Amino acid sequence: MSRTEELPTTTKSAVLNKVYDMQIKETPVKEMKPTDVLVKVMAVGICGSDVHFYDSGRLGDFVVNAPLILGHESSGQIIAVGDEVTGFKVGDRVALEPGVPCGKCEYCRSGRYNLCPNVKFMATPPVNGDLTQYITWPADFVYHIPDDMTYEAGSLSEPFSVSIHAAQLMDIQPGSTVFISGSGPVGLLAILAARAFNAGKIIASDAELSRLEVAKKLGATDTIDVTKEDIKTKVKNLTNDHGADYVIEASGNNHAESDALLTLGRSGKIAYVGMPAHDTAPLDIMFMTTYEPQIFGVFRYANTYPLAIKILHDHMDEAENLLTDFYDLEHTRDAFERTRTAKSDSLKVIIYPNEKLRTK
Amino acid sequence: MSRTEELPTTTKSAVLNKVYDMQIKETPVKEMKPTDVLVKVMAVGICGSDVHFYDSGRLGDFVVNAPLILGHESSGQIIAVGDEVTGFKVGDRVALEPGVPCGKCEYCRSGRYNLCPNVKFMATPPVNGDLTQYITWPADFVYHIPDDMTYEAGSLSEPFSVSIHAAQLMDIQPGSTVFISGSGPVGLLAILAARAFNAGKIIASDAELSRLEVAKKLGATDTIDVTKEDIKTKVKNLTNDHGADYVIEASGNNHAESDALLTLGRSGKIAYVGMPAHDTAPLDIMFMTTYEPQIFGVFRYANTYPLAIKILHDHMDEAENLLTDFYDLEHTRDAFERTRTAKSDSLKVIIYPNEKLRTK
Amino acid sequence: MSRTEELPTTTKSAVLNKVYDMQIKETPVKEMKPTDVLVKVMAVGICGSDVHFYDSGRLGDFVVNAPLILGHESSGQIIAVGDEVTGFKVGDRVALEPGVPCGKCEYCRSGRYNLCPNVKFMATPPVNGDLTQYITWPADFVYHIPDDMTYEAGSLSEPFSVSIHAAQLMDIQPGSTVFISGSGPVGLLAILAARAFNAGKIIASDAELSRLEVAKKLGATDTIDVTKEDIKTKVKNLTNDHGADYVIEASGNNHAESDALLTLGRSGKIAYVGMPAHDTAPLDIMFMTTYEPQIFGVFRYANTYPLAIKILHDHMDEAENLLTDFYDLEHTRDAFERTRTAKSDSLKVIIYPNEKLRTK
Amino acid sequence: MSRTEELPTTTKSAVLNKVYDMQIKETPVKEMKPTDVLVKVMAVGICGSDVHFYDSGRLGDFVVNAPLILGHESSGQIIAVGDEVTGFKVGDRVALEPGVPCGKCEYCRSGRYNLCPNVKFMATPPVNGDLTQYITWPADFVYHIPDDMTYEAGSLSEPFSVSIHAAQLMDIQPGSTVFISGSGPVGLLAILAARAFNAGKIIASDAELSRLEVAKKLGATDTIDVTKEDIKTKVKNLTNDHGADYVIEASGNNHAESDALLTLGRSGKIAYVGMPAHDTAPLDIMFMTTYEPQIFGVFRYANTYPLAIKILHDHMDEAENLLTDFYDLEHTRDAFERTRTAKSDSLKVIIYPNEKLRTK
Repeated sequence: MSRTEELPTTTKSAVLNKVYDMQIKETPVKEMKPTDVLVKVMAVGICGSDVHFYDSGRLGDFVVNAPLILGHESSGQIIAVGDEVTGFKVGDRVALEPGVPCGKCEYCRSGRYNLCPNVKFMATPPVNGDLTQYITWPADFVYHIPDDMTYEAGSLSEPFSVSIHAAQLMDIQPGSTVFISGSGPVGLLAILAARAFNAGKIIASDAELSRLEVAKKLGATDTIDVTKEDIKTKVKNLTNDHGADYVIEASGNNHAESDALLTLGRSGKIAYVGMPAHDTAPLDIMFMTTYEPQIFGVFRYANTYPLAIKILHDHMDEAENLLTDFYDLEHTRDAFERTRTAKSDSLKVIIYPNEKLRTK
Repeated sequence: MSRTEELPTTTKSAVLNKVYDMQIKETPVKEMKPTDVLVKVMAVGICGSDVHFYDSGRLGDFVVNAPLILGHESSGQIIAVGDEVTGFKVGDRVALEPGVPCGKCEYCRSGRYNLCPNVKFMATPPVNGDLTQYITWPADFVYHIPDDMTYEAGSLSEPFSVSIHAAQLMDIQPGSTVFISGSGPVGLLAILAARAFNAGKIIASDAELSRLEVAKKLGATDTIDVTKEDIKTKVKNLTNDHGADYVIEASGNNHAESDALLTLGRSGKIAYVGMPAHDTAPLDIMFMTTYEPQIFGVFRYANTYPLAIKILHDHMDEAENLLTDFYDLEHTRDAFERTRTAKSDSLKVIIYPNEKLRTK
Repeated sequence: MSRTEELPTTTKSAVLNKVYDMQIKETPVKEMKPTDVLVKVMAVGICGSDVHFYDSGRLGDFVVNAPLILGHESSGQIIAVGDEVTGFKVGDRVALEPGVPCGKCEYCRSGRYNLCPNVKFMATPPVNGDLTQYITWPADFVYHIPDDMTYEAGSLSEPFSVSIHAAQLMDIQPGSTVFISGSGPVGLLAILAARAFNAGKIIASDAELSRLEVAKKLGATDTIDVTKEDIKTKVKNLTNDHGADYVIEASGNNHAESDALLTLGRSGKIAYVGMPAHDTAPLDIMFMTTYEPQIFGVFRYANTYPLAIKILHDHMDEAENLLTDFYDLEHTRDAFERTRTAKSDSLKVIIYPNEKLRTK
Repeated sequence: MSRTEELPTTTKSAVLNKVYDMQIKETPVKEMKPTDVLVKVMAVGICGSDVHFYDSGRLGDFVVNAPLILGHESSGQIIAVGDEVTGFKVGDRVALEPGVPCGKCEYCRSGRYNLCPNVKFMATPPVNGDLTQYITWPADFVYHIPDDMTYEAGSLSEPFSVSIHAAQLMDIQPGSTVFISGSGPVGLLAILAARAFNAGKIIASDAELSRLEVAKKLGATDTIDVTKEDIKTKVKNLTNDHGADYVIEASGNNHAESDALLTLGRSGKIAYVGMPAHDTAPLDIMFMTTYEPQIFGVFRYANTYPLAIKILHDHMDEAENLLTDFYDLEHTRDAFERTRTAKSDSLKVIIYPNEKLRTK
């Protein structure tokens, strides 16, 4: 095993004991297998699903029954490399893919490993997450990031992967029109995904003007203020009555979930990526059986990291607009409260388990 | 122009004057262009959309404002052939594709001519249908049927095309599991479509035992009586907890529209082909964003007739089970009443504009 | 670990020492891991690639530098089950998928595990094959076969998988026309694959009338005797000048490899599955750039076994026509000579490592 | 009919009487149908196929038996609009799609209208081309170009469409590696196509250094001088031994046609778009059956014009590098000689049927 120094056997981590009870404490570092690397975690982004565990103790079927380290969007630096690992060395800057599938089930074998029922995914009970100073992780799910890419941008690979996956499922074509419903962190990254596929027109909506400003900085060609305009009417207007070719629904808002479908032109495609506020939304079956759209459910991602890192690197200055709040590990609870209250001036909240690299 | 006899200039037709007001009267035969054929209509099937016009005067955005000849599922015999037509001669037995697209718009040019906004479709105001003795039709939308194929089976090509189109959109694979929700005429034909794509397991549901019996005759490997069993539970049981690979929702029932999605396994696909009883049905967004299914709207069909005729011919004996009621043109109103009241012993109702070929 | 009896630690195997030097000797049984099963091999089919190693000591880049157990088409019965294995028990009848990919590379992760550069494939140096009485194999690459399916038919799952994979790559559609070039074992199984996808017309060619007879038994709707007829002319005649929709080139004959492309209609697709007699064949570029066909290379298969077994089971009587020669393990060399000389009355040669289940 | 002035009934055209016999003479302007526009042709690019007719009197099955107006890459200004035409007015700047398919055959109906056997394509006997001052053309095959787009760039939409079509057939993915074999006008435009699909690495080859310089200006990330380097070796080097994901073979060189396939990684895709110097090239079947690549024939294009115009407009400065030679109609023969002799400093030759807009 290659390494630079004595390796840590314990590490400081942000542990959720139970709802709202977040504690910073010493936890063991998992022993390395020959196919693992040990990573010093440099930046962790907070995601809506982390907050769900924090404030309600569960997400869908997953329930926090025992103390759990949260966090699954991260980048860091390699400090030890297992004997069978090739392609990595101590000192490498990397992003971590948080889900490790079984590699053997029908979903893994057919290329849809995000649907693996046996996947081990960070911060999904009982698997611990990356809000920790040192983490042992399989090298097969670790990716180089360029030297001039910030760790913060590197940690965005994870949420960005969801949009890339949605774009791949829908097969977004160059020159097409993409409507992004909702301009929170997920929607804003979806703008970059639409650009990665060279969409010709990218329309973004939100109820917050400040977020629409960021949407423009990230490349939206048009924006819709949903407090003043109806998305159906506005998208039609912006497309000469044609309707959108693709929609990425990233708001999770019940009304938007229904209406976003209706912004599509004939044979248009829509992907649902936003965490829904309610379990169901009304689906317009009459529209389905006359406009013949296709609806794509999206769950995480597969085979997206190299592309996600490349596109984020190509657009690093623009992606920086997403980063609004910065905390050290000791203030993890504050970071979660900031995310939970979702102020309009807050987009992606970053926690630094080791050195705090930025202040506001 | 090739023909056998003096051609008719008027013809007897079933005309809907206004809601419930169906009249048999003499109407003009449209003049033939050099690219047309003139067809003696031998059998016409009645479809739910015909009944909608009959009993409510509208369907979606289409409203009956003037007398309209109904009917769009038909077969017949050619009695005259335009000068520029090749491939047809007087006496040929044919099925008629009822929609004639513009051939020039972006949908036509890209192979999805069913979505042509300029399509002229039989029995969709203001285009007249085929409940008439003689109809002039473009030869490009007329198809040979084999000599040993009945006219009644020929007329099934139209509703069957919808299922074929759904199966093509979803790309049903050999050996897969298909759940057909609802065993009315549309669902029963969907069983044949699933067989055309060599599905390995075909599960059909309905609330009527008699229809489930017909489903078995058409090739369903398993059936679900929805009055006694929950489709989600039963489909899971029948698939070793895997869930269906594909679903064709053909019931139009609001509850089934929602639940049918949930019978899918991860990455499964569902197509909505049934005429919905209500405009919307609750869509389980949480399921969408964890199981990653795909939902296909289905509107009519494109490029399906040759395959539809071939499959119906391969399974003609089984398809016969769909044909339950037979009327001559004079009794068109009775035929519509029979369809409208939808008794469980009635499946597809056939009207004979010329000779009545069958009695019960 | 579950088992019935004392497990063998050595086994009798057919070992190729060097070219033409085949020896039956005792070899060690590989120790079982908790994820393995131990299989008593009941039937092994001989493939052209086995013969290549036998008579030339190499196949492409793979060279026999050390004694190698040949054979990779097999079925058998489970006699021991590792502790972590689920879904199998002692006594189960199974087919073995001979290639075990790494599960981690870009090809494995994206669903094309047949292209895994790290795959361990039976009878490909230095990995031993299945011409042995007992073999240890990962349960993930073992599949149940039905009780009423013969072991011989079970062993056909392997060569049949190649045709299934070709049909999946080309996405053969119901009702289409498929031309199978060459009616040796590979081509004959391709007929069954075309039927699995419900092709409407299946044309098979060969230079041997006896093989064309078998082609008809397996479901070819038309045959071409290439000693008397030109495949280009005949396929056009059989398709009203349309050309084939799909071609599976299974002859490996240089002239046929070139001409088979030209039997396609516009936008047709061809897959090369036959082991080529020469490294290159002339490709008609002018045809490529006017008819716009697609050519698919085919290397083994991925995710095919469950379907292959199901289709073989559905057509077991017809598949039996492929089985022409039967040997016990002691006569492995005779079996290879029989295959190598490729008499027209010999199709698939089966070796029984344990009980000899059939004579001619 | 809308128009500005008295419409011309005759026009000056470049007519090929027979091989090498090019004459400028007065020819009739085709009468307008209500669905036509009349276009004043402003710029015409010369293509290799035009030269083929000029110097050998034929191209594949098409033979010049009667005087023929050549040219099929053009842009111009509308001077009259048929009564049924919508979306165009006198004065509009447009590009002309030179092929008008029948709209009714199986290829047209399924979205592959480039394969229509009944297509009328400019400068393909007996259909006249656009080396003429005024041309009547169906409005459905005419496209707006932006005000700030030059007519010369507009005329590039035609050859560029071929590359766009190739990229669409292969479904080029963002971030992938594309190798362009040959950097003549077709290959250079293929670089832009690869960028339209956001390829990550674009490698271009040629035997002329000057063309490789242009390739870099158009966006090639790497170049290969085929007089000094082997493309197989160099592409492997440039891709860490992975091989290209996609290849566009645009050289037509026999040796390159064979070798370009071998630059692909496993499951790579190659499209042949270059006019081949010989009818056949050796195809490496052994590579096909181990690396499992896909080969796409490319014939013209379908549904590409709006995207082609958009991308050319996005990259107009770079596309300008392709324009090297400018002639008025009187000097059409000189223009053809310039194209025929294919000097390395000559890329796309433009002829101005009306005002000469540029000199060198």
